[in-house]
Amino acid sequence: MFDNRYDVIVVGAGHAGVEAALASARLGKKTAIFTLYLDNIAMMSCNPSIGGPGKGHLIAELDILGAEIGKHTDKYNLQMKVLNETKGPAARVSRAQADKYLYRVKMKEILENQENLDIIQAEVIDIIVKEKKVVGVKTSIGIDYYSKAVVLATGTFLKGKIVIGDVEYSAGRQGENAANYLSESLLKYGIEIDRYQTATPPRVDKRTIDFSKLKKLYGNEKPNYFSIFTNKKEQSIMPTYLTFTTEETIKVTKELLKYSPIVSGIIETHGPRHCPSLDRKVLNFPDKYEHQIFLEQESIESNEIYVNGLTTAMPPFVQEKMLRTIKGLENAKIVRYGYAVEYDYIPAYQLKMNLENKILENLFLAGQINGTSGYEEAAAQGFLAGVNAVRKIDDKEPMIIDRTEGYIGVLIDDIIHKKTPEPYRVLPSRAEYRLTLRFDNAFIRLFDKAKEIGIIEKEKLSELENYINIIKKEIEKLKEIKITKKEINILLEKLGASERVTKGLTAYELLKLKEITYNSLKGFVDILELPKFVTNQIETIVKYSVFIEREKKQIEKFKKLENMKIPENFNYDNIKGISNIAKDGLNLVKPLSIGEASRISGVTGHDIALLIAHIKK
Amino acid sequence: MFDNRYDVIVVGAGHAGVEAALASARLGKKTAIFTLYLDNIAMMSCNPSIGGPGKGHLIAELDILGAEIGKHTDKYNLQMKVLNETKGPAARVSRAQADKYLYRVKMKEILENQENLDIIQAEVIDIIVKEKKVVGVKTSIGIDYYSKAVVLATGTFLKGKIVIGDVEYSAGRQGENAANYLSESLLKYGIEIDRYQTATPPRVDKRTIDFSKLKKLYGNEKPNYFSIFTNKKEQSIMPTYLTFTTEETIKVTKELLKYSPIVSGIIETHGPRHCPSLDRKVLNFPDKYEHQIFLEQESIESNEIYVNGLTTAMPPFVQEKMLRTIKGLENAKIVRYGYAVEYDYIPAYQLKMNLENKILENLFLAGQINGTSGYEEAAAQGFLAGVNAVRKIDDKEPMIIDRTEGYIGVLIDDIIHKKTPEPYRVLPSRAEYRLTLRFDNAFIRLFDKAKEIGIIEKEKLSELENYINIIKKEIEKLKEIKITKKEINILLEKLGASERVTKGLTAYELLKLKEITYNSLKGFVDILELPKFVTNQIETIVKYSVFIEREKKQIEKFKKLENMKIPENFNYDNIKGISNIAKDGLNLVKPLSIGEASRISGVTGHDIALLIAHIKK
Repeated sequence: MFDNRYDVIVVGAGHAGVEAALASARLGKKTAIFTLYLDNIAMMSCNPSIGGPGKGHLIAELDILGAEIGKHTDKYNLQMKVLNETKGPAARVSRAQADKYLYRVKMKEILENQENLDIIQAEVIDIIVKEKKVVGVKTSIGIDYYSKAVVLATGTFLKGKIVIGDVEYSAGRQGENAANYLSESLLKYGIEIDRYQTATPPRVDKRTIDFSKLKKLYGNEKPNYFSIFTNKKEQSIMPTYLTFTTEETIKVTKELLKYSPIVSGIIETHGPRHCPSLDRKVLNFPDKYEHQIFLEQESIESNEIYVNGLTTAMPPFVQEKMLRTIKGLENAKIVRYGYAVEYDYIPAYQLKMNLENKILENLFLAGQINGTSGYEEAAAQGFLAGVNAVRKIDDKEPMIIDRTEGYIGVLIDDIIHKKTPEPYRVLPSRAEYRLTLRFDNAFIRLFDKAKEIGIIEKEKLSELENYINIIKKEIEKLKEIKITKKEINILLEKLGASERVTKGLTAYELLKLKEITYNSLKGFVDILELPKFVTNQIETIVKYSVFIEREKKQIEKFKKLENMKIPENFNYDNIKGISNIAKDGLNLVKPLSIGEASRISGVTGHDIALLIAHIKK
Repeated sequence: MFDNRYDVIVVGAGHAGVEAALASARLGKKTAIFTLYLDNIAMMSCNPSIGGPGKGHLIAELDILGAEIGKHTDKYNLQMKVLNETKGPAARVSRAQADKYLYRVKMKEILENQENLDIIQAEVIDIIVKEKKVVGVKTSIGIDYYSKAVVLATGTFLKGKIVIGDVEYSAGRQGENAANYLSESLLKYGIEIDRYQTATPPRVDKRTIDFSKLKKLYGNEKPNYFSIFTNKKEQSIMPTYLTFTTEETIKVTKELLKYSPIVSGIIETHGPRHCPSLDRKVLNFPDKYEHQIFLEQESIESNEIYVNGLTTAMPPFVQEKMLRTIKGLENAKIVRYGYAVEYDYIPAYQLKMNLENKILENLFLAGQINGTSGYEEAAAQGFLAGVNAVRKIDDKEPMIIDRTEGYIGVLIDDIIHKKTPEPYRVLPSRAEYRLTLRFDNAFIRLFDKAKEIGIIEKEKLSELENYINIIKKEIEKLKEIKITKKEINILLEKLGASERVTKGLTAYELLKLKEITYNSLKGFVDILELPKFVTNQIETIVKYSVFIEREKKQIEKFKKLENMKIPENFNYDNIKGISNIAKDGLNLVKPLSIGEASRISGVTGHDIALLIAHIKK
C-alpha cells in the first residue's frame, strides 16, 4: 500500500545530494532524497560565491555532463566575473556571486518538479545492510526505506557541533538540528570515521557599512556563463566591495588570540587550509597586516553582507572588536556571528573510484562526508555518485573521469589516494594538465562522457558535436592555406600590430600571432559564421598548440601507466624491497592500475618500479 | 566601542516578535530583535492561512493601530475570501491563504530595512535583572545586551520537544534547534511555567494528488483586504481543494489509535482544542466519519500542499495509511510528516493588562509563550507588548484595549483572567459585543487609539478621520430627510423589491430596508461620492442600528463596572462571605477594577456583590 521502495536513496539535500538525486531521477531511476529540513535544500552555508580557479572548471565540466549547478548559478546570481582575463587560457575562469536565497528556493522547485524524484523530510539514522550490500535506510520516524543503492551526502550534519569562543552545542548548521546517529551506525561495519572542522565569517547589516570608503568590484556585463546551454539576456553586475584588515585588526586579534577556539584547544580538528580563519592567518603570518576583505551581498532579497576574509570562531566580543578596525566597517552591525562547525567525515581512501564504499556494496558517498570542502567539489561528487549508483544498478561500467580528462578526475583521484590533513579543496595547482583542462573546452573534453551518461538531451548533444567537428575541420583547413609575407604584413599593419613577419605563413601559423583572430583571417580563408565559444576554441587550440601538444605527450604517458592494470586482490606482501609505508598505502587503497598506485601517499618511484617488475613476472 | 545598549529588546522573530520589534522601532526606540535562525523570520510553522472569524477581526484591528500583518498578508497571498457573506455583518470577515515563502522572505526584508532596528542571530539564555527590574538579556554567545524593556516572544522554542509516534527529540520546529535555557532561568524569579502542545498535519507533494476528484474553492477576485491602506490591482484567486475523511479513514485511525502519542501517554500536555488532531477527533466523536479536509498550497514557490484537517502526531506509517483512504489522496506522497511539539509557556495570569509580567518590571511577554495559539493572536500580543514597552519607557499610560473596543481586548482580557486548559484561540463566541466589534469598522472603533499610539502616518489618519466624520454627518442628514410613501414604493418597485411601505419614512428609516443602499437614495438625498468602505459603514450602522444601540447599553454597563476601580494591594482576605476560590483568583490576578474582577475564573456574581459592598465602605 505504502510505497517505500526506490532504486536510489540519497541522504542529504545540499549541493552534493541535490546533484546525486537529480542525476539518478533524470536517468530514469525511482529516487528518494532525504533532508532534515525541507526549507534549506541547496543552502549556501558559507560564501555566496560559486566558481573561481579549479572550482569554476568543475562547474563547466559538470554542466556538459548534465548537472544543475552551472545552469542554476547562471540564472540566480548578483554578478559574474571572468577571472584572470589577461593570463593564459588555462587560468581564465568564471566566478559568480550567487543569490543565496533564490538559489535555494528555486532549486527546491526543480527537485519538486523532477519526475521520478520524491523528497522526504526525515532523519536517516542507519543503513540497512544484507550480506555486505546496502539495501536501504532506517529513519528516526520509524519507517524503513529500501533501495538498490544509497548515496550519503550529509555535509556537516553528522554529529555536527558548533563552536563560538568557548561555547559549544550540537547543530548541523547554526539554528539547525544535527544528525547524531548515522555516523555511529556506520562504525559497526568497519567503516572508519574522523572529524573535520570548517568555519564561516560574520554577516553584517548592509545599512551599517560605509561604502564610500571602499572599492567597488563590478561583475562583467557579458560574462562567460558556466553553462554552455545558458542563453541569458540580462545580467546583474551588482558590485562587491573590497577592504583590508589593518595593523589595528591584527593587534586586536593577537591580543585576544587566547579566546580563539583553535588556540584554546576547544577545536582540535583541522579546517580548510585554503580558507583559513583570521586567527589562523595571524598565527601563520604574524607579520602580515593587510589581508583582503571582500564584502559580498548574499541575496537581492536581503541586506546581509558576507564578510569574506574574516572567517573566525572567536567569541562575538572579539568579532565586534575586529570589525571596528576595518575601513568601512567601523560601525558595522553583525547580524550573524562567525562560527565553526565540527563534524564527522569518512576518509575517502575507503572509496572506489566510482565513489562506492569498499566494504559495503551499493553505498556511495559524496561531498563533505568525504572530507572535501566547497559547493563545487560537493556537486561534482554528488553528480558522479548519482550517475555511478545508477550505472551500478544497470550493471554498466562505472563512469570514471581521470586526471587527464577533468578537474573532476583530479578531485576524485586526489581524495581517494592522497592523505590531506584538512578538508580538500580543488586547486589548479593540483591539476597536472592545466592547459588541456581548460574552463572553455569542458564541452569538448567531456563530450563522449556526456553522451555515455545520457542526461543531456540528444538534440543539444548533436548540435555540440557538430561544432566540435567544425573546430577540428577548420583547424585542418587553416593548415592548408598559405598566405604571403606581404599580405600578412598589410594585415598586421591594419590591425595596429607592432610585429612583422619575415616570410609567408599558413593561416594556421598566422593565427598563432597575438593580434590575429579567426575572423580577422577573412579574405584569406573562407570564414564560417560561428558562435564565439566555437571561434574561441579554434583560436586557443591553434595559439597554444605547442604547449597543448607537449601536454598531450605527458597525458599519453599517464594513460599508459593507467592502462597497466594490477590484478584484483594482488598481494603486495610478496614484493621484496618495497617499503612498508608503500605496502600499507597499497593495501589500504587497493589500486586498480600502476598509475593509480603511483599516486598513493608514501608510494615512491622505486616502489613502482619494483611493482611493475613483479607484475610483469 | 561595541554598542550593546538598546531601548527595547525583543526575543524571538515569529509573528509576535516581528510586530513587537517593528512597533518599538517605528515609535523611535532603538530596538534589537533576537532570533535563533535568521532565515526563518515570520515563518508560518503550521497552516498557511491568516484570518477567518475572530482572527480576521484581530488583523483588521492591528492594521489600523499600525501593525504589519494585515498589509503583508494582503500583498503575499494565493487567495483571499470573504467568509459568511450572506450572514450578518458581525460574522463577515476575510481569510487569506498566505504565501508561506514570500511572507517570510519579505518580512525579513521589512525588518532589515526598518530604521532603529537591529537583527541579531543568537540564543537568549537568561534575562538580566536588577532590583526586580529587567535590564537586559544574556546570550549563549557570551555577549550581554542591555535595554529598558524586554519582550519575550519565543513561540514553541522554549524547551521545544518534537513528538512523532513514540519518537521524541529536542527541537523548536522540525529541523530547528530549541532554546533550552531561557525558561529555566525565569523560574528563579518565581515565574511559573507550564507546558502546552501543538501539532501540524503532513504536507504532500502536489503532483501526487488527484485533483479531478476534488471540489475547487477559489478566492474572491475583489476581496475585502485586511488593511484599509491596501490598494492592490491584481489578486490571485488560486484554489484550495476540499475533500473528506471516509469511513475507512476513521476505521484505520481507530485500529491504530494505540500508536497515537495522546493515547499512549507520550503527550500528556494539552493542545489547541479548536484545531484538534484527527486522533483527537476520533476519540471525541467516534461516530463521525466525514471530517472536512482542505488541501492548501503553501507557496507559489513550492509544490507542498498542507493537508488541513489531518493534524496528527501518529507515527508516519499510520499517516500513510490514513492518506490512502481519502479521496484524491489515494496515491499522495508525504514530503513532511505531521508532528507535535511540546513547549514551555508562562501562564498569562502572571501578566498585567499591558502584557508586562507582574513580578519583574519591564518584562513583557507575547504570543505562544502566553499560552495562546495562532499567528493573529501572536501578532496582536506582540504589537501591544511592543507599544506598551515603549509607553512604559516613555512614562505614558499603558495602551489597553478593552472587550468593548476590540477582539484584541477580548484576547488579552481572556488570557489574563480565564484559565484555559489548552492553548487559547480567539473566537467570535468569546466576544460579548460582536455587532460592535465588526471586521469592517475596526478603523472607526480604534481610530483614537491609533492616533494615541502614533505609528500610522498623520496624513493617512486625517484622511480616515474625515471619512469618519462624513459617516456621522451623513447618518444625521438621513434622519432629517422625509420621503413620501408613494416615492418609496415607486423606488421599491424599480429595485424589484417584493415589499411596500404603508407610510412615508425618513431616508434613515428607508435605508434600513434590505434592498436599499446609500447610493439608491439618490434623488431624495444629496448623495456624496464616497469609497465603498465608507458607504458600507453608513449602511451597516443604519440597518443594524436597533441591535447596535442595544449593545451600546450593555457596553455602558460594562464600562461602569470597569470604571469601578479596586485599590492597589487590596486585601481580599478581609471580605467576609467571599468564597476561597474567588479569593485565590483575586489574589493571583490582582484586578484593577470590579469589571476585571468579575471575569476571573471562579469569581461569582455573589462574590462581586460582596466585593462592591466592601469597597464602598
